[in-house]
Amino acid sequence: MFQQLGLIGCGLMGGSFALALKRAGLVKHVVGYSKSPSTTERAKRLGAIDAAAESALLAVAGADIVLIAVPVSATEATFKAIRHLMEPGVLFMDVGSTKRDVVDAARRALKEQIGGFVPAHPIAGKEQAGIQHADAALYTGRQVILTPLPQTEPALVQKATDVWSAIGAQVLKMTPDNHDAAFAAVSHLPHLLAFAYFSAVAKQPGGKDFLSLAGPGFRDFTRIAASDPTIWRDILLANREETLKQSTRFRHALDALEHVIRSGNAEALEDLIRSASEGRAAWHMGSPPSPAAAPAR
Amino acid sequence: MFQQLGLIGCGLMGGSFALALKRAGLVKHVVGYSKSPSTTERAKRLGAIDAAAESALLAVAGADIVLIAVPVSATEATFKAIRHLMEPGVLFMDVGSTKRDVVDAARRALKEQIGGFVPAHPIAGKEQAGIQHADAALYTGRQVILTPLPQTEPALVQKATDVWSAIGAQVLKMTPDNHDAAFAAVSHLPHLLAFAYFSAVAKQPGGKDFLSLAGPGFRDFTRIAASDPTIWRDILLANREETLKQSTRFRHALDALEHVIRSGNAEALEDLIRSASEGRAAWHMGSPPSPAAAPAR
Repeated sequence: MFQQLGLIGCGLMGGSFALALKRAGLVKHVVGYSKSPSTTERAKRLGAIDAAAESALLAVAGADIVLIAVPVSATEATFKAIRHLMEPGVLFMDVGSTKRDVVDAARRALKEQIGGFVPAHPIAGKEQAGIQHADAALYTGRQVILTPLPQTEPALVQKATDVWSAIGAQVLKMTPDNHDAAFAAVSHLPHLLAFAYFSAVAKQPGGKDFLSLAGPGFRDFTRIAASDPTIWRDILLANREETLKQSTRFRHALDALEHVIRSGNAEALEDLIRSASEGRAAWHMGSPPSPAAAPAR
Repeated sequence: MFQQLGLIGCGLMGGSFALALKRAGLVKHVVGYSKSPSTTERAKRLGAIDAAAESALLAVAGADIVLIAVPVSATEATFKAIRHLMEPGVLFMDVGSTKRDVVDAARRALKEQIGGFVPAHPIAGKEQAGIQHADAALYTGRQVILTPLPQTEPALVQKATDVWSAIGAQVLKMTPDNHDAAFAAVSHLPHLLAFAYFSAVAKQPGGKDFLSLAGPGFRDFTRIAASDPTIWRDILLANREETLKQSTRFRHALDALEHVIRSGNAEALEDLIRSASEGRAAWHMGSPPSPAAAPAR
């Protein structure tokens, strides 16, 4: 399907994409660039890339598909570094967990070339970052959100849809704003809460001993607290308004629960818990969203 | 090791204990009582119990080990129902997630007979309650906290230690107050937060569509939000003071994170996240606690 993938950023997300395309026979050659030469070297040894480029720009040269898999805060600089080699018909995508800021950065850096960029967010990841955790199956069965702009080339949106589908992902389209509102709720806020919760327990007197008693509920609840600090610093800052809005909603729900606990209202407490419990028991990952969730533009 | 187990409450916890003792060849006969005859019937069909008793008292008759596995709020009534058949040398245990209230209930109901009761809390569970989810391996590799009182028969504490060890659990001893403080931090608060978080997301406009986009981080973070409403109503009320104290600590940690997000202080935000992330990455379930964590009385 593709001759050459230019991979900018050879971490967990980029490395897994390259491995998935190779495993599916969708690309002949992968040229990768990383800020750190040791990362590029490791990506080569792991078979994620075939050759190392000395710059982001050189990773783009000759590619017919380019994946930008860098921390969200590095998006604009990356676009500026590669725009001189952006050719019509070449598919450019990112993997950023926020989309409003990525689209704004792309507008500033790419100007009239923005039509070649299809913003993408694969809903996949691990709490361990780095190419050493890359996995050809990372995106299998996962959702990928595309947030094309009015200027985005429809043919490239189709190509993007095809390549993610071909590696087993389910593709949805939304506006960047709808994306950021939704992911503040289901991803960015839980990370914020997990960071806050783990810190609160660990830093209190006796916290270390408490942690030694924690069981499987704690293990799963705090798994995302181990996520990469620089990636999450960027996400929480990039999507701060929506995330803080969601945090306010959460605080109201917590207030309501604490109020009935404090007043000893067992019936009201059971009702609140039951509503959450039944809702969560009925939830299944990757349920197809209602048509309203995915307005194409 | 034992002739007859009297099981009061044939749910997930009780049923799993009976199955584990049977699998390990530690008991010859299990007599079970449940409020609902259909539960007892199911426990019989699943091989967790051999015979159904018509009352809690009758489940105790002839037993040399008794497990009370009822919601925490039913503890006192259960003790009152069975105290007339409490014989010296018979091991009585519970499985409650809170210990201060269970011990108080036992004191009120059992009075001078309290020496026969070894309060126990196995750190195990599933978000699905009920005998149909009982599992002989539920306690394998898990920790069990015993909170014996000054009056508790040392020989029974030893028996309790032996039986949990024999089914693969690791036994620790603490005071009821230390237990409740620790589990408010590592179990009761996370449940409260998970209930609040799931409700906040689900009940907002567009919440249903947001939920359809949630990925594996959300799945793990909210797993405990599906926990049993009556059990968690009881736990949160029984341990309300410690849980609310922990919630205050959590809110301070959340305030600190939100403050640096709002002010755009990327460096301070990264530091806060890194401290949580490194702490969580270094944590492993069931690490042996320091001696200070487990004062024997």
